[in-house]
Amino acid sequence: MPVVRDVLIWDCERRNAESGDIVIDEDGRISAVLPSRSAKGDVIFDGGGETAAIPGLVNSHTHVSMTLLRGLAEELPLMEWLETKIFPAEDRLLPRHIRSGAELAMLEMISGGTTCFADMYYFMREVASAALTFGMRAALCRGLTGDDARKLNENLALAEEFNGRDGRIIVQLGPHAPYTVPRESLARIAGIARDKNLGVHFHWLETEGELETFRNEYKISPSAYLEQTGMLDVPKLLLAHSVWHPSDELGRVNRANVTLVHNPKSNLKLGSGYAPVREMLGLGVNVALGTDGAASNNRLDMWDEMRTAALMHKGYHRDPTLVSARDVLRMATVAGASGMGFSDAGLIKTGWQADLALVDISGPRYVGCDAANLPEFLVYSGTSRDVRATVVAGKLLYKDGRYMTADPEEITAKAKEHRRDITK
Amino acid sequence: MPVVRDVLIWDCERRNAESGDIVIDEDGRISAVLPSRSAKGDVIFDGGGETAAIPGLVNSHTHVSMTLLRGLAEELPLMEWLETKIFPAEDRLLPRHIRSGAELAMLEMISGGTTCFADMYYFMREVASAALTFGMRAALCRGLTGDDARKLNENLALAEEFNGRDGRIIVQLGPHAPYTVPRESLARIAGIARDKNLGVHFHWLETEGELETFRNEYKISPSAYLEQTGMLDVPKLLLAHSVWHPSDELGRVNRANVTLVHNPKSNLKLGSGYAPVREMLGLGVNVALGTDGAASNNRLDMWDEMRTAALMHKGYHRDPTLVSARDVLRMATVAGASGMGFSDAGLIKTGWQADLALVDISGPRYVGCDAANLPEFLVYSGTSRDVRATVVAGKLLYKDGRYMTADPEEITAKAKEHRRDITK
Repeated sequence: MPVVRDVLIWDCERRNAESGDIVIDEDGRISAVLPSRSAKGDVIFDGGGETAAIPGLVNSHTHVSMTLLRGLAEELPLMEWLETKIFPAEDRLLPRHIRSGAELAMLEMISGGTTCFADMYYFMREVASAALTFGMRAALCRGLTGDDARKLNENLALAEEFNGRDGRIIVQLGPHAPYTVPRESLARIAGIARDKNLGVHFHWLETEGELETFRNEYKISPSAYLEQTGMLDVPKLLLAHSVWHPSDELGRVNRANVTLVHNPKSNLKLGSGYAPVREMLGLGVNVALGTDGAASNNRLDMWDEMRTAALMHKGYHRDPTLVSARDVLRMATVAGASGMGFSDAGLIKTGWQADLALVDISGPRYVGCDAANLPEFLVYSGTSRDVRATVVAGKLLYKDGRYMTADPEEITAKAKEHRRDITK
Repeated sequence: MPVVRDVLIWDCERRNAESGDIVIDEDGRISAVLPSRSAKGDVIFDGGGETAAIPGLVNSHTHVSMTLLRGLAEELPLMEWLETKIFPAEDRLLPRHIRSGAELAMLEMISGGTTCFADMYYFMREVASAALTFGMRAALCRGLTGDDARKLNENLALAEEFNGRDGRIIVQLGPHAPYTVPRESLARIAGIARDKNLGVHFHWLETEGELETFRNEYKISPSAYLEQTGMLDVPKLLLAHSVWHPSDELGRVNRANVTLVHNPKSNLKLGSGYAPVREMLGLGVNVALGTDGAASNNRLDMWDEMRTAALMHKGYHRDPTLVSARDVLRMATVAGASGMGFSDAGLIKTGWQADLALVDISGPRYVGCDAANLPEFLVYSGTSRDVRATVVAGKLLYKDGRYMTADPEEITAKAKEHRRDITK
């Protein structure tokens, strides 16, 4: 049986980290956590006592194929950026570009210890297929706008073909946003989600304008809108951004099936506002963390996202005790995985999926790191460059700069060609 | 003559990057920039067309030896953190600890392309000596508090021994902060600085409490205080933090000899507030960038600092056009170097110091990067892990993970021992 040997193990249920060996069964689950250097088996990784093992990082809101649009334009107002740069480029995207962008994103994510992501875009068969090839875990949906039966059918066909595949793919429904999907369509999508037992991934109140539309035009509170369209009753609901969800209505979305996905760097870069993360955590809402697409971030790096989440709310509220390192590690692991419907991913426990980020803590930036302060060292001092290996469902996908399931040179060279295709 | 061959060269005076070879003379200055692969000489680095050359990064406010206190305590209110954790540990620091922390910091800085830093602490001979051994450029001062002749004499002895050494060390005077140095002492220090032609490095209005003290107790505007103590007339003045400098008084410190040093991550982490960087840049004030010490950051990573500076003000003012990538690259290079008094460092130009960060742009995160958008790719997509090599005064200090002037294993092992010394 595969063994990850002699690592300092921490997940968000522990107070202190503990040294040990992680034993993995044939199904890619953790079968035991034993004292260091005591497990028998096929050692797939030896941490030598100077490597931390944490649950694989979970990126709960992204558009992976937008890596192909990274840096296409910068520092423009949102609508100008979308209308003059992003939409025209998106109009040129063909399935091969979607595939290429997804592969590029997976190279980046895997090298930083990300094992799982939630994605909304189109030509999503390409993304599903790439995730299966790379060995990643993913919750995928086809973005739905207007009242478009063709798109809905594509989303349902995606579910038919990929939902549950290899135990690593979940298919959700992807109504894009309240301003792009009419109320009746949203209610219909929510009904289908309940009938077919599918989760839903939705952009929610990213900008203040959306909140104003609810107040001034729809004359309804945002939470009442979610209730009345049936969205709060779908099996799993990911509400990406949730920047302008009114603080005094957070209690109404604080349900076991609802996850608010915080996107700190995208919100800062686009000037969208500050999500009420302090209030969300205070109420015990399930809060996850995501990068958004690379066109508005510009990285798919959960380390950067964790650190930004931990810093920005301290700064905004001028309180250094807010949004702790332990809070953001929980957001970046088990909160995201459970929010997508991976009910046995995101912790390091017997019976759970062996999804791991293995992090070098021997270097200069970790002097002073010990079993009691490991989470704080990881969030405030750690970076994606410290990730030595990434494991999903017990399989090594990346180790010491080498990819086990992908050819980075080939993918990068192809992506450069495709980038030229869509920008020429 | 040493040659850095076939790199995509950019500094903040250029609109677009250009490919070329950088030729370095015997004094470590740039003697020519020639077309790619045309220069004759000793090729110390070959970029192969997929490496960017930018001016070495300049960390304009830090306390390098505090790497030994990194993560000692987290997420506490400022005064509790200082009084219960930092001050007691600082009381135990001996010269060997200062040296060890400085060496640890230099490993981290050099591997991220930082070539120059401004430092305030004590036992500063150790820091000067380590910088000389490593080959870094630095502006150093002894932190002065109260009206303490011993400390002032140490600062002056430091200047006597090290100012101008190897063309790489500048010694400044280091009055700590307005709340730790009485007005008369500050005036005396400013007078000595003018007499001896020394720059001054000063913590300035980091917290709102300081501004309130000026208004409610001293009954004087902060800028008038700087004027009346003679601080604005010293040869070079670095005002670290400058968070609460009143926006409507920025005109009064907008002088060629005055540099405001922005410390974005430290300000966020400690909840100090938002420096008026938009207003500073709007007026043309010389704004530099620094990490502050590792105990309150927790990294000495200028890439992280640049990105945070570019994002936090967009987010705070909800305007994606503010504080551009080009602004922060200028802050992180020539603005800092000139602010310290290194008048020929921070640009890639004939006759200037050959201080360079050489950055791999071949990988997945740089697909789409070209001569026109390189600065934006570096700030929004780049990380310290992309730095392939670091050059100071024409000498390679770091290349592809190897240090030329230091033994990282030995330094790290020694630092771990010293950390145990001061925390036991």
